Amino acid sequence: MSSTVAPSGLTRPAHAEDPASAVVQVYDTTLRDGAQQEGMNLSVADKLAIAAQLDELGVGYIEGGWPGAIPKDTEFFARAAKELDLRHARLAAFGSTCKPGAQPHEDAQVRALVDSEAPVITLVAKSDIRHVERALRTTAEENLRMIGETVRYLVGLGKEVVLDAEHFFDGYRYDPAYALRCVQTAFDAGAATVVLCDTNGGMLPDWVSQVVGEVRAATTGRLGMHAHNDSGCAVANTLAAVGAGAAHIQGTINGYGERTGNADLLTCVANLQLKLGHDLLGSDGLRESSRISHAISELTNITPYGRQPYVGASAFAHKAGLHASAIRIDPDLYQHIDPVAVGNDMRMLVSEMAGRASIELKGRELGFDLAGQSELLGRVTQRVKDAEAAGYTYDAADASFELLLRHEIDGHGPRFFEVESWRTFVEHRPGVGAPTDAEATVKLRTGHGRVVSTGEGNGPVNALDDALRRALVSTYPEIEGFELTDYKVRILDSQQGTDAIIRVLIETSDTVHSWSTVGVGPNIIEASWEALTDAIVWGLLHAAVEPR
Amino acid sequence: MSSTVAPSGLTRPAHAEDPASAVVQVYDTTLRDGAQQEGMNLSVADKLAIAAQLDELGVGYIEGGWPGAIPKDTEFFARAAKELDLRHARLAAFGSTCKPGAQPHEDAQVRALVDSEAPVITLVAKSDIRHVERALRTTAEENLRMIGETVRYLVGLGKEVVLDAEHFFDGYRYDPAYALRCVQTAFDAGAATVVLCDTNGGMLPDWVSQVVGEVRAATTGRLGMHAHNDSGCAVANTLAAVGAGAAHIQGTINGYGERTGNADLLTCVANLQLKLGHDLLGSDGLRESSRISHAISELTNITPYGRQPYVGASAFAHKAGLHASAIRIDPDLYQHIDPVAVGNDMRMLVSEMAGRASIELKGRELGFDLAGQSELLGRVTQRVKDAEAAGYTYDAADASFELLLRHEIDGHGPRFFEVESWRTFVEHRPGVGAPTDAEATVKLRTGHGRVVSTGEGNGPVNALDDALRRALVSTYPEIEGFELTDYKVRILDSQQGTDAIIRVLIETSDTVHSWSTVGVGPNIIEASWEALTDAIVWGLLHAAVEPR
Repeated sequence: MSSTVAPSGLTRPAHAEDPASAVVQVYDTTLRDGAQQEGMNLSVADKLAIAAQLDELGVGYIEGGWPGAIPKDTEFFARAAKELDLRHARLAAFGSTCKPGAQPHEDAQVRALVDSEAPVITLVAKSDIRHVERALRTTAEENLRMIGETVRYLVGLGKEVVLDAEHFFDGYRYDPAYALRCVQTAFDAGAATVVLCDTNGGMLPDWVSQVVGEVRAATTGRLGMHAHNDSGCAVANTLAAVGAGAAHIQGTINGYGERTGNADLLTCVANLQLKLGHDLLGSDGLRESSRISHAISELTNITPYGRQPYVGASAFAHKAGLHASAIRIDPDLYQHIDPVAVGNDMRMLVSEMAGRASIELKGRELGFDLAGQSELLGRVTQRVKDAEAAGYTYDAADASFELLLRHEIDGHGPRFFEVESWRTFVEHRPGVGAPTDAEATVKLRTGHGRVVSTGEGNGPVNALDDALRRALVSTYPEIEGFELTDYKVRILDSQQGTDAIIRVLIETSDTVHSWSTVGVGPNIIEASWEALTDAIVWGLLHAAVEPR
Repeated sequence: MSSTVAPSGLTRPAHAEDPASAVVQVYDTTLRDGAQQEGMNLSVADKLAIAAQLDELGVGYIEGGWPGAIPKDTEFFARAAKELDLRHARLAAFGSTCKPGAQPHEDAQVRALVDSEAPVITLVAKSDIRHVERALRTTAEENLRMIGETVRYLVGLGKEVVLDAEHFFDGYRYDPAYALRCVQTAFDAGAATVVLCDTNGGMLPDWVSQVVGEVRAATTGRLGMHAHNDSGCAVANTLAAVGAGAAHIQGTINGYGERTGNADLLTCVANLQLKLGHDLLGSDGLRESSRISHAISELTNITPYGRQPYVGASAFAHKAGLHASAIRIDPDLYQHIDPVAVGNDMRMLVSEMAGRASIELKGRELGFDLAGQSELLGRVTQRVKDAEAAGYTYDAADASFELLLRHEIDGHGPRFFEVESWRTFVEHRPGVGAPTDAEATVKLRTGHGRVVSTGEGNGPVNALDDALRRALVSTYPEIEGFELTDYKVRILDSQQGTDAIIRVLIETSDTVHSWSTVGVGPNIIEASWEALTDAIVWGLLHAAVEPR
């Protein structure tokens, strides 16, 4: 596509390397700096799942957290060492240099970094003399000693050391000589990379370009860029730094982070890779970026931002009308890149153009060849569109999609049981045994006759799940092997409070597979029931059970 | 504040004017290009209300829509002429040049622009030869004639004419000579401004800087910039254009617009005004920008984006416990600008990383001076840590935090009512009226005696909310003004399926404030109940109601 190269006649600034020859490292800090975002609270399991997605994306580094300072992060590194099998990324533990007056090997916080067993240690250090004096309350020389000795100590233990020079740009503006001494001290002690941090996020691209160029001319090692978006320029500042010679970029998935967030890593990478000729994730990784962005949104439970560049749901959505026919003939005239390059799709907001191809592909993935069946394909596409308009999402619920597809193929789908009714009851009486009690009753029919079953649980969905299993287990003992492993709730159209539409996603596993189902409705219990029954049906189907 | 000026030693590019002397026009297109956003549907009354807000903000131009093409926009201009009393802004009608083969005065669409009585007419025209030939299906020369004659006709009628050169950057890359002829033709015919549009949004700042510099050197009049955010660089591209000599910027409030949106006008203005020395809205206008951004969000009914630069709810929210003690001493070291300059506030988030310093700051923000009370501060900090370990989060639930604090201060907190018990019931019977039914009963005591109340809803939480309000309204009629506006559910440690811990966040509003509360537990209904009752208690407290 023509727009993936620089405009003809435009040249790069003289101080930049040939962009095609510079190898830029991609360093993800979603799990550490991204986790500072308001409202985000990740469990260790969430962090492990996100790390696996990041590795699949193909980033070079995953910063997992601050072991020693945050107990959950200490646990993350302990479990990561056993449970994560990283193919691309190196794991980085974040922490601080030793304290004023202390030796690195005596500092408990530095020890915790070593104990994390991460091969990469990223040390945050002050490089703004005002922060050294007012926040750290020590001297300029002591701060340099802390940097030099801590880096040297960790390098001596075989670690790859990255130094995050906090408040670097503000510090350089105030006292460039001192900021440069911090950088060179780290390089002299063996740091692999020194990252220039716009910690307060207030920089503009021209300023970044000039400062990075000057630092590059005055020091000797690999420079990195860590940008925040307070001026709305985090992506542009990252590009400016690379243009001026930085060869390591830090950012977060979906731009998560404190205040206005960090640089959106996928946007930075897509710009560098598709427009400036860098090869960062490879084209395979980049093609996974929309999917991985959305998968991580599910894990963080932060509503995806539709207008997010490249990977947002609206990023390639065109309002039909004036340009519709022209777009159809010549999409390249109306899109800055081919959305396939980032795993996204062009959507025509009022046309039926999108969908059929991806549904055909999805069907093939599930073992159904819809290619020759135009009428069926049209029906399934329409049914998916209607369902998505109502709030369903099949991206994260393959099993429900397969049941929908089977329903359209034979007119009814699998018939393991027929539900007559269900009810659930929650009662809270302080001082009476367990103060809150949940109970559910399910009435249904199988080929063996009518069953009425009551279950209990510590919540209404748990009680319903229990009642449903009790009702079915004598007819279908196979369900004893199914385990509910994840349950997620999202409120759609959240301006209506408890009247809003609710989407429930459930993940179920047996010893071999896990599968996901979806339910939607104004009532959370009803939506949960839909996802629960889909989960049982899909599980029985794939255990090759016949309806009894 | 020191960061409002360029770093010492940094100079502007040689081709830029002295920024302090260039008068940059601010042109808002929220009502026209912004309205292309997916999901936005503005009434004429909405548009009039937004225009009044924009005028208060102090923008120079308000583009109201496309009269003649969109009936609602024709009506907008008719009503605006009578109802809007603009103090700062000039109203602009957007439309197209005359059609191929037609004269401007014979073209119905051009007549509708004149009939709108807007003093400014903004004409969209092709400047990319490929679009001229493939989409417009006419010749290079005929397109120039259409531009020249339509501009000349409207200027002759006393209009200020702005030409939006569509797809300009892509067109300039492909055929710079033709793109330049389009610009100069418009200037020769009397256009006041020619706006270079990055219609597909794929440009990067260096490219914009170079193209605008070249166009400025080759043509004679005022140049403008119209950016979209497809590369995540709309703000930086706008700054780059101004740096290269553009003196008119177009954008939308909150970055609304098709796909990834237009340049966020308030972010562009804040950067230019607070960091680059331009005087665009005056400091009074800028101080209104947070309020006006939020007011326009209410009118568009699009959920505000918390991480939006400058005006977002999180833009000056600090979470890290590490920094809290230093922020208290010296906020300028941790903020890129003073939030007061854009009418926003610094906020401290109470989080698991929080220590005593951030709790003390948070208390001060809520009106409690904990500075001298070391024992109380220690107790509150411990209670927050315990609660967060159990799954609570207070960074998104200020109201629950305040109730916790009051409880620690007086040992019990406010006593508006005492709950005896509650229960809720959900039943699903297909084929029986509404197939799923939710009902709840609440038993509680106020100073007026014991109340038993039953409520209904389309889900169990909705039914409980209804029952609780019915139980309290005769004692506390103030709660009629409270509205539940957001409800979020998060499953913690989601590897345990429906046995997991559930966190509910609820937002409640009255006509003046909105407040957030949190509830946690293994049972979603119990967690919702906790957040619901906290919401009522906080609302009554802040309505200055005494327990009755």
